Amino acid sequence: MTPEDFRTHGAAMIDWVADYMERVDELPIMPAVEPGEIYAHLPDSAPEHAEPFAAILADLDRVVMPGIVHWQSPGWFAFFPANHSAPAILGEIAAAGLAQQGMNWATSPACTEVEMRVLDWLVDLMGLPEGWKTTGAGGGVIQMSASDATHVALVVARERARARGASVDDQVVYTSEQANSSVEKGARIAGFRHVRLVVTDEQHAMAAGAFDRAVAEDVAAGRVPAAVVTTIGTTATTAVDPIASIADLARPRNMWHHVDAAYAGTAMLCEEFRHHQAGIDRVDSYVFNPHKWMFTNFDCSVFWVADRRPLIDTMSIVPPYLRNEASEAGAVIDYRDWHVPLGRRFRALKLWFVLRSYGISGIRDRIREHVRLTHELAARLAADPRFVVAAPVLFSLVCFRHDDGDDATDALAQALNAGREVAVTATTVDGIRVIRVAVGQTYTEQRHVDRLWTLISDLAW
Amino acid sequence: MTPEDFRTHGAAMIDWVADYMERVDELPIMPAVEPGEIYAHLPDSAPEHAEPFAAILADLDRVVMPGIVHWQSPGWFAFFPANHSAPAILGEIAAAGLAQQGMNWATSPACTEVEMRVLDWLVDLMGLPEGWKTTGAGGGVIQMSASDATHVALVVARERARARGASVDDQVVYTSEQANSSVEKGARIAGFRHVRLVVTDEQHAMAAGAFDRAVAEDVAAGRVPAAVVTTIGTTATTAVDPIASIADLARPRNMWHHVDAAYAGTAMLCEEFRHHQAGIDRVDSYVFNPHKWMFTNFDCSVFWVADRRPLIDTMSIVPPYLRNEASEAGAVIDYRDWHVPLGRRFRALKLWFVLRSYGISGIRDRIREHVRLTHELAARLAADPRFVVAAPVLFSLVCFRHDDGDDATDALAQALNAGREVAVTATTVDGIRVIRVAVGQTYTEQRHVDRLWTLISDLAW
Repeated sequence: MTPEDFRTHGAAMIDWVADYMERVDELPIMPAVEPGEIYAHLPDSAPEHAEPFAAILADLDRVVMPGIVHWQSPGWFAFFPANHSAPAILGEIAAAGLAQQGMNWATSPACTEVEMRVLDWLVDLMGLPEGWKTTGAGGGVIQMSASDATHVALVVARERARARGASVDDQVVYTSEQANSSVEKGARIAGFRHVRLVVTDEQHAMAAGAFDRAVAEDVAAGRVPAAVVTTIGTTATTAVDPIASIADLARPRNMWHHVDAAYAGTAMLCEEFRHHQAGIDRVDSYVFNPHKWMFTNFDCSVFWVADRRPLIDTMSIVPPYLRNEASEAGAVIDYRDWHVPLGRRFRALKLWFVLRSYGISGIRDRIREHVRLTHELAARLAADPRFVVAAPVLFSLVCFRHDDGDDATDALAQALNAGREVAVTATTVDGIRVIRVAVGQTYTEQRHVDRLWTLISDLAW
Repeated sequence: MTPEDFRTHGAAMIDWVADYMERVDELPIMPAVEPGEIYAHLPDSAPEHAEPFAAILADLDRVVMPGIVHWQSPGWFAFFPANHSAPAILGEIAAAGLAQQGMNWATSPACTEVEMRVLDWLVDLMGLPEGWKTTGAGGGVIQMSASDATHVALVVARERARARGASVDDQVVYTSEQANSSVEKGARIAGFRHVRLVVTDEQHAMAAGAFDRAVAEDVAAGRVPAAVVTTIGTTATTAVDPIASIADLARPRNMWHHVDAAYAGTAMLCEEFRHHQAGIDRVDSYVFNPHKWMFTNFDCSVFWVADRRPLIDTMSIVPPYLRNEASEAGAVIDYRDWHVPLGRRFRALKLWFVLRSYGISGIRDRIREHVRLTHELAARLAADPRFVVAAPVLFSLVCFRHDDGDDATDALAQALNAGREVAVTATTVDGIRVIRVAVGQTYTEQRHVDRLWTLISDLAW
């Protein structure tokens, strides 16, 4: 495929995506395929000879599309959003075209420094500590996912505790029983055998007293508290752990304090939500995912550390073929030392495109509109005797249940999803079934939430 | 930005990339920027208001391009290639447009099953064991990088040894002194304290006898051999460890045997290279990177396991909000349980586009041409008394040195790179400075290698 061919096929591909954007709100959100169906529709072996691009594009429609879940539908209220946006896609194209391998500063100064600058911007935009900028003692790095970032934080915590003589087998990680599964997964992968899921209060936030007691018990038993992971915006209900109280307890014990703001970090762009991160100046690391609610394609998970030295000390191994003047002089950031992979894409481009194309005011407006729509829906649910709002609405998620109990709640969730016009997630909170409605898809507007309300109201008995 | 805007700006972005493809061979490969220069050219804060796309595109040229390293130049002979290609970029656009979140089968059956099928194709295409297909006991998964895949393999090995009662502190990982740094990095991140870099023979391949002795010594000292990582195509010289001999020693000791074929795996598409992977039927896992030499944009690292159960047992944690019928029934693959991250992009699309657009014969032709060009260059070097070919040429890398010694070799490398028309890597092998020439960039043809030879010949004293 020559550059001229690429020009032609690229234009066709762009039109295909633009057409998809235009029609995605009319597509049934969930596919109607059985396990193995897409696999069976693909041939048993790869083609021996080159095929024309038109054939590939036709198969994208014929074979792939029937198995696509329309995360980009404005009727998407399931999980958390995993948004694309037009400027983010354009940024992905630029990144794919330039195909940088930004492992070192020297292998792509642009990939490194655009990332430094854009993440430094976000420190200001989100009201995070000034020292987290690359101009300070800390710094930010784009990782693939919050799972990766949390895993890395726990590895650094483990090595810090080891340096003080604690065996991995004796080290303990604490998080709340409402934390995302990535915390326990990351801890297990990092080798921890003790993960304490601290009980939560009636708001589903970590109970600081229970955390304190759990730590004391472990210390009394000869174990070593290595890390605590608090959450701003839990997955089930967007609860917020008391960061400041936990920091007060964790710091004197030399525990690494990592904050998972994967979803709710985006809200911190708006000042009115920042009280939720009070105490953030006394934590060690923080992750938030622009690839959820900030209109930036996956993968784009931002990980900040207050002090970059322990991170780099843990992750850095420099073989001769990666040695270079700029790195040896210590004048640059080599992002290979900030995460597990060596290679890295130019992911900062899409973030830069998004910030410039929307402008900060544009992003803030959309976030606030999503939050407003969420509160409006919550008010409708609260006013209807059939429904109970099951958790405080802090950001853009409302959790509710049917007043008749779990079966009625599950039946409603199934009925909502069966229509394939909207998608919601059913889960369990405090042993009770609830429906999560996450408002935050790039294209979601008033009419889509109104339609969801109509469906809820019509389908519930 | 509306879909109509996207159509317009997308066409402009495609043209920009096509223009880049057309002119990349004329651009000075390495940028002439100082540390901090790109950072300083970006404003101190993000824009408050939306900016037109034309302004962003203009800044891509004005601010970003001066800091770009042209990995996509046909004069790129440094490191290993990190290739883009036209069909891979088109696949990236489709993936970005659909923006699937393929963590579970249910959250994107297409993302899951296209990946299963394409990786099953590759098992056949590369002559790998039939049981590695998803239809067998094993299976493949796309990870971000070989570093990630190797790290995961080592985590599984660690947990297997732990299940037999071995503390992490006592476990040992073996690899050769020529292994990629990602092995030691992955082992450290996985928590291993003992990493043995086994000595290599005169071909830079792991010495099986030395490996056997190292294992025996550790066992005698009460340590537990947990894993060995062999390499097909080392980074420095593309040496090949004796997979079969190491497998004979590792299997009776219950060690996890992981094979790093990150670069050379692509050569296995051609039957004449497969003797290098004799014994592969007796290893536990294998990684190769289509994002190096197979014309598929980063990130695309394929990780196979012979048996998927220990992998899934180690990585799987299922919270209530991820439970679903298809997964509970065991009828599907949930790729979230095959790696550290939960979320995942539809990376199989670009691989599918590449395989179909080139056809297998098209890919094989290019690989064989790169290998032929490499041998031709090696022959020229060998015939010139100023140069010494420093390692056997097995694939598409030639390592050579100046006969006058390290200073002459380093001076030549510097002179070659200073011209910015080609890029090579200087490194150290067996304590001696060598120049690595990796032939394998998507656009590299006869005339580019001829030009490199002219430059070498002219610049060497």
